[in-house]
Amino acid sequence: MKKVYVNELKNHIDEEISFSGFVDTIRDKKWVMFVILRDSTGKVQMTIEKSDENNQKLLEIMSTISVESTIKVKCKVVSNEAVKLGGIELIPSEIEVTSLALNLPFDYNNLDGVNLDTRLDYRWLDIRNEKNMLVRQIESTLTEGMREFLYKNNFTEIHSPKLIGTASESGSSVFEVKYFNDKAYLAQSPQFYKQMALAAGLDRVFEVGPVFRAENSNTNRHATEFTGFDLEFSYIDSYEDVMSLEEDLLIAGLTKVKEKYGEKIKEIFGTEVVIPTKPFPRMKLKDLYQEMHDKYGFDIPEHDIGDMNAEAEKLTFKIAQEKFNSEFMFITDYAATKRPFYHMRDENGVLQGYDLIWRGTEITSGAQREHRYEKLVENANEKGLKDDVKFYLQFFKYGCPPHGGFGIGLDRLTMLLLGLTIKETQFIFRGPNRLNP
Amino acid sequence: MKKVYVNELKNHIDEEISFSGFVDTIRDKKWVMFVILRDSTGKVQMTIEKSDENNQKLLEIMSTISVESTIKVKCKVVSNEAVKLGGIELIPSEIEVTSLALNLPFDYNNLDGVNLDTRLDYRWLDIRNEKNMLVRQIESTLTEGMREFLYKNNFTEIHSPKLIGTASESGSSVFEVKYFNDKAYLAQSPQFYKQMALAAGLDRVFEVGPVFRAENSNTNRHATEFTGFDLEFSYIDSYEDVMSLEEDLLIAGLTKVKEKYGEKIKEIFGTEVVIPTKPFPRMKLKDLYQEMHDKYGFDIPEHDIGDMNAEAEKLTFKIAQEKFNSEFMFITDYAATKRPFYHMRDENGVLQGYDLIWRGTEITSGAQREHRYEKLVENANEKGLKDDVKFYLQFFKYGCPPHGGFGIGLDRLTMLLLGLTIKETQFIFRGPNRLNP
Repeated sequence: MKKVYVNELKNHIDEEISFSGFVDTIRDKKWVMFVILRDSTGKVQMTIEKSDENNQKLLEIMSTISVESTIKVKCKVVSNEAVKLGGIELIPSEIEVTSLALNLPFDYNNLDGVNLDTRLDYRWLDIRNEKNMLVRQIESTLTEGMREFLYKNNFTEIHSPKLIGTASESGSSVFEVKYFNDKAYLAQSPQFYKQMALAAGLDRVFEVGPVFRAENSNTNRHATEFTGFDLEFSYIDSYEDVMSLEEDLLIAGLTKVKEKYGEKIKEIFGTEVVIPTKPFPRMKLKDLYQEMHDKYGFDIPEHDIGDMNAEAEKLTFKIAQEKFNSEFMFITDYAATKRPFYHMRDENGVLQGYDLIWRGTEITSGAQREHRYEKLVENANEKGLKDDVKFYLQFFKYGCPPHGGFGIGLDRLTMLLLGLTIKETQFIFRGPNRLNP
Repeated sequence: MKKVYVNELKNHIDEEISFSGFVDTIRDKKWVMFVILRDSTGKVQMTIEKSDENNQKLLEIMSTISVESTIKVKCKVVSNEAVKLGGIELIPSEIEVTSLALNLPFDYNNLDGVNLDTRLDYRWLDIRNEKNMLVRQIESTLTEGMREFLYKNNFTEIHSPKLIGTASESGSSVFEVKYFNDKAYLAQSPQFYKQMALAAGLDRVFEVGPVFRAENSNTNRHATEFTGFDLEFSYIDSYEDVMSLEEDLLIAGLTKVKEKYGEKIKEIFGTEVVIPTKPFPRMKLKDLYQEMHDKYGFDIPEHDIGDMNAEAEKLTFKIAQEKFNSEFMFITDYAATKRPFYHMRDENGVLQGYDLIWRGTEITSGAQREHRYEKLVENANEKGLKDDVKFYLQFFKYGCPPHGGFGIGLDRLTMLLLGLTIKETQFIFRGPNRLNP
């Protein structure tokens, strides 16, 4: 018999069904045993009257098992207004124990005192916490909403290789792989391959997949492996087209999340999912510097001029809220020296790209890309890149449409939506000191 | 101005639009120049009359550029029944050259005489071939169809780590990664993490992502990195539930492909997309052996008893067609010794899993999983697995629902659908001797 989920029970009142789930709580009263059962959609009460002769076998079974074990129950779904949990109770006629749980190392319902490393060691118990399970469902729904938008707009999904022959975009650190008698590296982003797909004539592509960064930094927002949501598309007129598409994409993703989980997010995280409106505010970097100086007496340190730093990102959020009543802000006109060689520059050397700051953290770098072979070679030379990017430069020799794109850190997006750290947000966190489970 | 795509032109007759694309062909006649332009949705003719004074500048521009360059055109969309290409022509008033193509190393329209390695070296030119571009669009649509089905059935998408601390499922070969001062390995499948998600209570999960196999084999269907489509779900009664879900999933994916590209596949590949009907035929391994012996005089070699080999897979397709009029066949009752330790066995030791053969090639292994800690430890010990799976066994100590799942090689599925080799099917192939581009 097909399992009925908790959120479907209301459609089965007075029916005989099969219900399976985790044993969440057992309340053993004098005359009755209440067992709270749980699946990923919610909780329900199972009621076993002790006075009923027929229930002795069931009570015996239940007396031998621990909470967090799983059971399968043949039962009747009964409507009962007195039951606080959704006004429904299950009256069992058969109980089968499907797995037995040992004592848990910590109470996942109350994680306040639990060391984060312990939680990550036992991540599958940590996720049983209502909040952490919701994070997983939200990240999935966010991705679903964004993908739907892209499918509708004729994007083709690609899966680019993660094993690559040369350490791309040198400067950042890449992981080295033993590849038979040779060496390979792990891709830091699908950037080069997204662009290759456009040179192949695919016009509009996206990829959702792992990216790897061999950075030995331990912060609240960095990981050595995370999920990138990357896209690239041809025939743009400027990076304004890229920003515009990113606005639509984020609106589509956040709308899907709000529709499905808006109420639950409010209830459990105390946060409102705010759907932004188009266009998001835009500021040039030098105007932003001026504003931060005038308003907050903040000046960007010498070595960061032409770029942002963490404090500047925080202040940008303030300015976005106060000046534009927005949680988002696009920053443009970064210094070319601070950006990758493949970002386009105009005839005055002004960079044709942007960062997007949400709630004080950078979530995207986007740009129109340099698609003209000679210019691209020039930019690469200027940055001292040679053999590393040789294979990439070839993509642009045989015709390539003007194009642009961006990448979003999916976990970072979810993290900011819910006000978490990256370790709590990733399904399974990977950092310099964490490779398990 | 927003680019209009070729397949949208019919909605813009007599309008002034912006069109961009690759220069596919130039036919320079005495009185007129025909330029065929191309984007990912098709081709269109641009017509430049030579007698028109106003066209001299345009003709000059076109005379300087090579085919496969890209241009951006301001033009009028004109309906003209005499034009073979969709009855539409573009009459340009402005032309801008957006990129210039060098001479291509081979003619991608005629790949017959071109060495496959050369094609892979220049994969972005290889994909410009109409057939190869269609492969990319079909794989994306297949994935879209399968994902839609899973979202509708309340599956949560996960992104499990590819960097792992221990070489899982020892026996097969894993890639080793230098991880700061330590070692890591590349995940051969998301198997353990899918199951962890179910132990966490997520109930139904799937993942589409790269899997890595350090196998030094050069065949038409193996790669060192490919895209896995993996899912796992709780509260099943037996592996019959798993097979049933896989049937629905494949039907959903193939239906989506047929709807969107059925005609084009017939035209370009000469193949019909056949939507299978439920249930797919099922045979026990020993009955299949008997059938192959009786019908084809084939006996499985001694060392493969309890399992299949390539020839047996081919014969299975014959039997599926002749006996069941089906392209698919589930094979069950494999020997436990030939299967991973985490596949469930019944009280008689019969394996609760299956393989799915499509058109003579295995596309899936699926099973009910062993979710009971003690049994699982027993199975692991029997296979001589110890430290490798220690972290995995922990997932089952604190309650875990009965569950099952399977994995499909996405590229292999597409390959079989279209009758290709794996090198032609993967976006960018990776094998023991190929790490580029």
